[in-house]
Amino acid sequence: MAQGTEDLENLIALMAKLPGLGPRSARRAVLHLIKKRSLQLIPLAEAMHRVGATARECLSCGNIGTIDICDICANEKRQNGQICVVEDVADLWAMERANVFKGRYHVLGGTLSALDAIGPEELRIPKLIDRCQSEGVTEVILALGATIDGQTTAHYIADQLPGITVTSLAQGVPVGGELDYLDDGTITAALTARKSL
Amino acid sequence: MAQGTEDLENLIALMAKLPGLGPRSARRAVLHLIKKRSLQLIPLAEAMHRVGATARECLSCGNIGTIDICDICANEKRQNGQICVVEDVADLWAMERANVFKGRYHVLGGTLSALDAIGPEELRIPKLIDRCQSEGVTEVILALGATIDGQTTAHYIADQLPGITVTSLAQGVPVGGELDYLDDGTITAALTARKSL
Ligand SMILES: [Zn+2]
Ligand SMILES: [Zn+2]
Repeated sequence: MAQGTEDLENLIALMAKLPGLGPRSARRAVLHLIKKRSLQLIPLAEAMHRVGATARECLSCGNIGTIDICDICANEKRQNGQICVVEDVADLWAMERANVFKGRYHVLGGTLSALDAIGPEELRIPKLIDRCQSEGVTEVILALGATIDGQTTAHYIADQLPGITVTSLAQGVPVGGELDYLDDGTITAALTARKSL
Repeated sequence: MAQGTEDLENLIALMAKLPGLGPRSARRAVLHLIKKRSLQLIPLAEAMHRVGATARECLSCGNIGTIDICDICANEKRQNGQICVVEDVADLWAMERANVFKGRYHVLGGTLSALDAIGPEELRIPKLIDRCQSEGVTEVILALGATIDGQTTAHYIADQLPGITVTSLAQGVPVGGELDYLDDGTITAALTARKSL
């Protein structure tokens, strides 16, 4: 690289840390951005700055937005007695794109994992139990991955919620698959065919 | 997504335009950045801003840097009578990483293409001819892709430079392959075994 390129090298190094990019694709992306300076590079820098300044987790469900209580939690129409529990925000967004679930969400932030020493306190499970009482929840729908940790987490949550119907997405979720990688139709089928634990 | 998420959606849309990323990987990358706000999101926004404000093409060779004449062109030791011609800046960087070429570069900005109506004037070929005279060049090494357009470009340049030895990287460049995807050893072998056109 040319002189005075610490900034360039720094940018490439930061881009290379993004999931799905490596050093080569980061170099390609940065050269692409420099060619599209006014259309892409500057707007991207500004969008990141704005998101960095304003993004926050919803205090109730853990969704990402710019206010303390997200619009799903703030929407009274979505208090229908159902909470759909997902591992992360990408899964919540995938459910919303499918546009089939009318209740509220709860983002766990992962799954229980003995290997990684992740227990209920790390996962917003206590907050889920609180919400089931305060929001008059009658059914908790577990939309967790069909992994061993996902299923362990599902059974743990079901045990913590006596008197509440706990169901899980069933049909269509491939073994070992992640929710965010499914098409909308599969998610719809899985929700419709949910089964009681 | 939650209320007030125009900024988030805008950021995801901009990220999805990067080469190698699509909508899903852009969403994942943005969620990753929000989780790593102070370590990655804010530094990335600042690095993009700095590069956007300072990056420019070297007026002589077309390399990307922050000054009018890049350090390779400004380095008298690299005026050794050899110019290596590459299609784009990523290829120049790949050559530099191989650390085997001691002369200067010339970035064409693409290859001649009848289909895309790209002629010599679009490609900094006139500037290359100027440099061959003003910099006392005795050998032009063509490090162009082994595509039909790349080879057409190579022969066109050779025809424009009577009295100058024009060679091309030979051994090791796979047919249809791009320079930036080769390992350093392959580039070294290709340079060492270059052949006269
Ligand atoms: Zn919420
Ligand atoms: Zn230069």
